[in-house]
Amino acid sequence: MELKMTEAELKAFLARDFPQVAQDFEFVELKPFDITMALSAADKHLRPGGTVSGPSMFALADVCAYFAVLSMLGPVALAVTTNISMDFMRKPAPGRLLCRMELLKLGRSLAVTEGRLFSEKVPDKPVARASLTYSIPPDAPISVG
Amino acid sequence: MELKMTEAELKAFLARDFPQVAQDFEFVELKPFDITMALSAADKHLRPGGTVSGPSMFALADVCAYFAVLSMLGPVALAVTTNISMDFMRKPAPGRLLCRMELLKLGRSLAVTEGRLFSEKVPDKPVARASLTYSIPPDAPISVG
Amino acid sequence: MELKMTEAELKAFLARDFPQVAQDFEFVELKPFDITMALSAADKHLRPGGTVSGPSMFALADVCAYFAVLSMLGPVALAVTTNISMDFMRKPAPGRLLCRMELLKLGRSLAVTEGRLFSEKVPDKPVARASLTYSIPPDAPISVG
Amino acid sequence: MELKMTEAELKAFLARDFPQVAQDFEFVELKPFDITMALSAADKHLRPGGTVSGPSMFALADVCAYFAVLSMLGPVALAVTTNISMDFMRKPAPGRLLCRMELLKLGRSLAVTEGRLFSEKVPDKPVARASLTYSIPPDAPISVG
Repeated sequence: MELKMTEAELKAFLARDFPQVAQDFEFVELKPFDITMALSAADKHLRPGGTVSGPSMFALADVCAYFAVLSMLGPVALAVTTNISMDFMRKPAPGRLLCRMELLKLGRSLAVTEGRLFSEKVPDKPVARASLTYSIPPDAPISVG
Repeated sequence: MELKMTEAELKAFLARDFPQVAQDFEFVELKPFDITMALSAADKHLRPGGTVSGPSMFALADVCAYFAVLSMLGPVALAVTTNISMDFMRKPAPGRLLCRMELLKLGRSLAVTEGRLFSEKVPDKPVARASLTYSIPPDAPISVG
Repeated sequence: MELKMTEAELKAFLARDFPQVAQDFEFVELKPFDITMALSAADKHLRPGGTVSGPSMFALADVCAYFAVLSMLGPVALAVTTNISMDFMRKPAPGRLLCRMELLKLGRSLAVTEGRLFSEKVPDKPVARASLTYSIPPDAPISVG
Repeated sequence: MELKMTEAELKAFLARDFPQVAQDFEFVELKPFDITMALSAADKHLRPGGTVSGPSMFALADVCAYFAVLSMLGPVALAVTTNISMDFMRKPAPGRLLCRMELLKLGRSLAVTEGRLFSEKVPDKPVARASLTYSIPPDAPISVG
């Protein structure tokens, strides 16, 4: 199964539908069922001491997982986050915070993603793990079981 | 078991340690093991259409649960969020978004909270549910099993 | 909104569709959107020392939540568990282990439940909390938003 | 960091401390921070139609994650499950049900694991995903941050 949206199309989608946060995230790698994005950490994402805040990590995981779904479903769908589970394990190191999400299931009504957040310089010591579920509206074009 | 911190002390703690977000939250009710807070929704918390964003709901749940722990533990502790699970169930209605959190367990090394987010005008139709776990450092003053 | 199934109908459903475990659970209270069940702990549910095992607690939470959904949806639906999140907080005390589940949302395609497991003699010190999501098939008869 | 327990030692531990379920699980592969086990599905694990039951999947994930922790911590520790999050995505295919768990963090007081359950014949279509947290008692011998 191939990608239904290019990186440029996903970027345009983000800029149009989420203008307030579009500049916060960048694409690192886009593959079918597997996407990596980065948080362009600005002051507003940081806690005292320079740590990336919990809500910013949540936002990165949500955007990354959402695009994992959208890239395989196409832009017509209006998927909404229904569940998230996150474990916070380590403080982020200085530098970029990345998130890699896999799309584990793209069903008719539910999509399930799982992935990890990690500092670019220490990829084998994940900062957090996250799994998210999206509800897919009945009129979405496809499903792959 | 009684509250270890007053509302004024919690507010001062928030203003000092989380200056960037302190003005985003307000206290509604503070009781032992049971706290209700509200999000003072500003433009930065909203998605197009006026819906409160997922990261803002996460932030409200996290601050509310954190204060449920801190209010019973006292200000010396440096508790950190280790796990969150949230289900998003309905779109928030216009008006204030509230979160009520119960502290279900305050152990030596872990605290567990559970609660619901709801629109002030529709308290019986929760917008989301959330459960959060906090790790309590070994030198924290107390525990109540 | 009223119950779509009586306790007797739920019991018959359990005996027919889950004959291997039907005798493990009993009803304590059945109200709309709110159900309490008990585990009839037998040797097979216990760990050395007499503690109820994790899988048995999972089973109790799942059956109780499933019946919270089914009792409001009616017997025709084939709801399946899609997500569970549990926090284990205390060892069960001797005696019956109960689970009270609330049905927080009964939507067209998803139902969300939340509840607590507790020893009958110590209801204010929950043994565990659990939230479960069920996927409802498209041909299910109703929905209540 | 090397394994602190061999497969034989883990098997002996399982047989001694969990005699009722020891015969239900078998080792497939044991590596540092990465373990694969299988459920020896018997009638008691099956639902009508031959599907592995939810509690049996929970049990497989819990034992596998527990041994991921124990194999790196050594047999003295008394780790207890404090949190589980599972997403159920597909029906198991006939044949063996496997679970591969990674140990993402082994800290002083918490260990975090994440993994997937899958049918042996269809490894790329996971049946479920699971993440589990274990609380490690203060007197456990080691930690690796």
